[in-house]
Amino acid sequence: MTTTRVLTGITTSGTPHLGNYVGAVRPTVRASRLANTENFYFLADYHALIKTSGDPARVQRSTLEVAATWLACGLDPEKVTFYRQSDIPEIPELTWLLTCVCGKGLLNRAHAYKASVDKNTAAGEEPDHGVTAGLFMYPVLMAADILMFNAHQVPVGRDQIQHIEMARDIASSFNHLYGEHFTLPEAAIEENVATLPGLDGRKMSKSYDNTIPLFVPREQLKKLIMGILTDSRAPGEPKDTEGSALFQLYQAFASSEETQGFAKAYADGIAWGEAKQLLFERLDREITPMREVYDELIRDPARIEKTLLAGAEKARAIATPFTARLRHAVGLRPLQVTDSGKTTKANKVGAPSFKQYREQDGQFYFKLLDAHGKLLLQSSGFGSPRDAGVCIKALQEAPSTLPPNVLVAQDASTEEALQALRYFLQANS
Amino acid sequence: MTTTRVLTGITTSGTPHLGNYVGAVRPTVRASRLANTENFYFLADYHALIKTSGDPARVQRSTLEVAATWLACGLDPEKVTFYRQSDIPEIPELTWLLTCVCGKGLLNRAHAYKASVDKNTAAGEEPDHGVTAGLFMYPVLMAADILMFNAHQVPVGRDQIQHIEMARDIASSFNHLYGEHFTLPEAAIEENVATLPGLDGRKMSKSYDNTIPLFVPREQLKKLIMGILTDSRAPGEPKDTEGSALFQLYQAFASSEETQGFAKAYADGIAWGEAKQLLFERLDREITPMREVYDELIRDPARIEKTLLAGAEKARAIATPFTARLRHAVGLRPLQVTDSGKTTKANKVGAPSFKQYREQDGQFYFKLLDAHGKLLLQSSGFGSPRDAGVCIKALQEAPSTLPPNVLVAQDASTEEALQALRYFLQANS
Repeated sequence: MTTTRVLTGITTSGTPHLGNYVGAVRPTVRASRLANTENFYFLADYHALIKTSGDPARVQRSTLEVAATWLACGLDPEKVTFYRQSDIPEIPELTWLLTCVCGKGLLNRAHAYKASVDKNTAAGEEPDHGVTAGLFMYPVLMAADILMFNAHQVPVGRDQIQHIEMARDIASSFNHLYGEHFTLPEAAIEENVATLPGLDGRKMSKSYDNTIPLFVPREQLKKLIMGILTDSRAPGEPKDTEGSALFQLYQAFASSEETQGFAKAYADGIAWGEAKQLLFERLDREITPMREVYDELIRDPARIEKTLLAGAEKARAIATPFTARLRHAVGLRPLQVTDSGKTTKANKVGAPSFKQYREQDGQFYFKLLDAHGKLLLQSSGFGSPRDAGVCIKALQEAPSTLPPNVLVAQDASTEEALQALRYFLQANS
Repeated sequence: MTTTRVLTGITTSGTPHLGNYVGAVRPTVRASRLANTENFYFLADYHALIKTSGDPARVQRSTLEVAATWLACGLDPEKVTFYRQSDIPEIPELTWLLTCVCGKGLLNRAHAYKASVDKNTAAGEEPDHGVTAGLFMYPVLMAADILMFNAHQVPVGRDQIQHIEMARDIASSFNHLYGEHFTLPEAAIEENVATLPGLDGRKMSKSYDNTIPLFVPREQLKKLIMGILTDSRAPGEPKDTEGSALFQLYQAFASSEETQGFAKAYADGIAWGEAKQLLFERLDREITPMREVYDELIRDPARIEKTLLAGAEKARAIATPFTARLRHAVGLRPLQVTDSGKTTKANKVGAPSFKQYREQDGQFYFKLLDAHGKLLLQSSGFGSPRDAGVCIKALQEAPSTLPPNVLVAQDASTEEALQALRYFLQANS
């Protein structure tokens, strides 16, 4: 069986919350243990700069927190390639190479960009009001992330499918222009990924400011859970599991047996306070052992830094030679290297050449031109092309004297001609 | 007097012609000899990818030809910083950092992009038909070229002024968000730069296919000059210097005295063939000595490659530490480094360190250890502690390459050592 390369990135622009854990971290850590997969996990800090312009401390802090979260949740950096995007200088370089083959029209159609334009238009603003080039170019950076490692699969939610399609399009354009270098990636849609509700019942998301951070201290976790919005049914009244944020959160952490028990408690009219206490206990049971590791890691940023640098080295063991291949493909090459990747003999680039031709007098002639087409030697007429060929061969094999039927051109010197002839000796040796 | 930093790039997408020589190469080579300037000349091969998508051999060949042209025309790589853009990985990285602070609206207004849109609209096409993201993002790459070296002046023609203004805008945005890092560059308008006419009398330009390459063989140069379009006045008839391509070309190469003589010959009714012969001789006189150097250089691409790599090293001695500062500014930082650039207290132990010592041989040595005391670098012996100190300082200030008297330890990698060295940059910035 062949190995499937799977790539996952998390933007380092915030503090990981329960929604990230259930929707991304937990499933990807589990997937990392599957056989026949080779996994790449990266901290997307170049991406973070799009959203956090002007807040450097937040990018740094988030990078630390996301890295510590992944490690605390069981990602084994020995088994996977776990790296920070900005430690791979080949990523922005590949971004530029892809920018040059990516149609602007493709980017115009990106959902995230279009959403900004629609919002501006609705508000009576200029379409691109407040839109940075970073937001617009984000799909190209993401394509570079994916294509750099020739990932086969990228696990994403439905809202991200378009980005994978764009990466495929960009890869196809490049392959079409420069040969087959890139694997076309596929979106691995996580159909049954739980979207967790936040404190207010809407989807848990930084942008709604309704998140429960994964690794807050116990007391704070409890306090946050106690603040989850519920309806006003009194203790003893049966509760609806349908649409209950509390219930969905519980379900995301519990076994189906536990969930059944919780549903029964709802039917039996459990008090909200009591239900929240049960939820807290269930969450805390799963989180506590990880939190201990997390807290320890956070206290030692130098250790995480070291882990990330080791990961970058692993990633660059792929990225560096691959980028060298891509650079060659587009024409960014050492000057003495030929199209096929060989080093030229000293003079291959400026090679002289023989031209054979027939004149109106019916005789066969040849001339020797230098690298730039300058005439060096002119033969007199031969009775047959074969005779002319014999003379050329003699010149090439013993470039020391010129036979009488070969004349040096007016603007050239004998030395120049002999030097050019010596080229053939070297080229044919 | 302070030094003015001047930066000039040439896109490597074609063969240098007389127009390039008169309009760009000759004046910049002259300017490079001015006192109180520090000059940066680069081969813009990342830019070339925009125009030459799918033609790698052309990019490579043009890079060779442009480099050889500049050197043959007298650019002294010892006196200036002469490098190839794609040898500086910090350039695409800075491009991304700038992309994140650049408003998309700014790019919408770029003349080159708007011209493409207008052309499409006029042709009844979609506005972005055939427009690549490369064309759209080109001003950001150009801003990175300029801002990386904090150039004060960028000599440009009138059509390029907007790009310099955009670089200023982008620099201002970055400075506003992250502190004063960038000098705002100024366009140095070359008011009296001759625009040469081409073979057909229109401006000499690759896009009109009317160029006279600078370094063709003599015979070919002559042939091309003989083909320049003239009116049909017969020998003996007085000729108009006004609007005569022949005359303008002559003027661009001749002294004012020579030009006066040529004007007189026009008035006296010189035959076109004779005038062309005079022009050829005048051009050839200036070009021949340079052509000899050029031909020699072209035959030895490995030598030019070496020159460019040495230039890249010089450029990166600036670009690498400066990019480290910029990375710190935006939040791409080693996790244990604080906002102010100090290592966090908790992890003071977790900083790399230099140890200096004297061996029994009486010489002075140093080594670089990582946060955990692992040996990364080992120096050879120095005659004095001061010499060792100078070497340490150089390593801390420009952690891009290792000098020959410093060896990477057996269990360490170059990458690890360079990463550790970058720590000092940030800690000291």
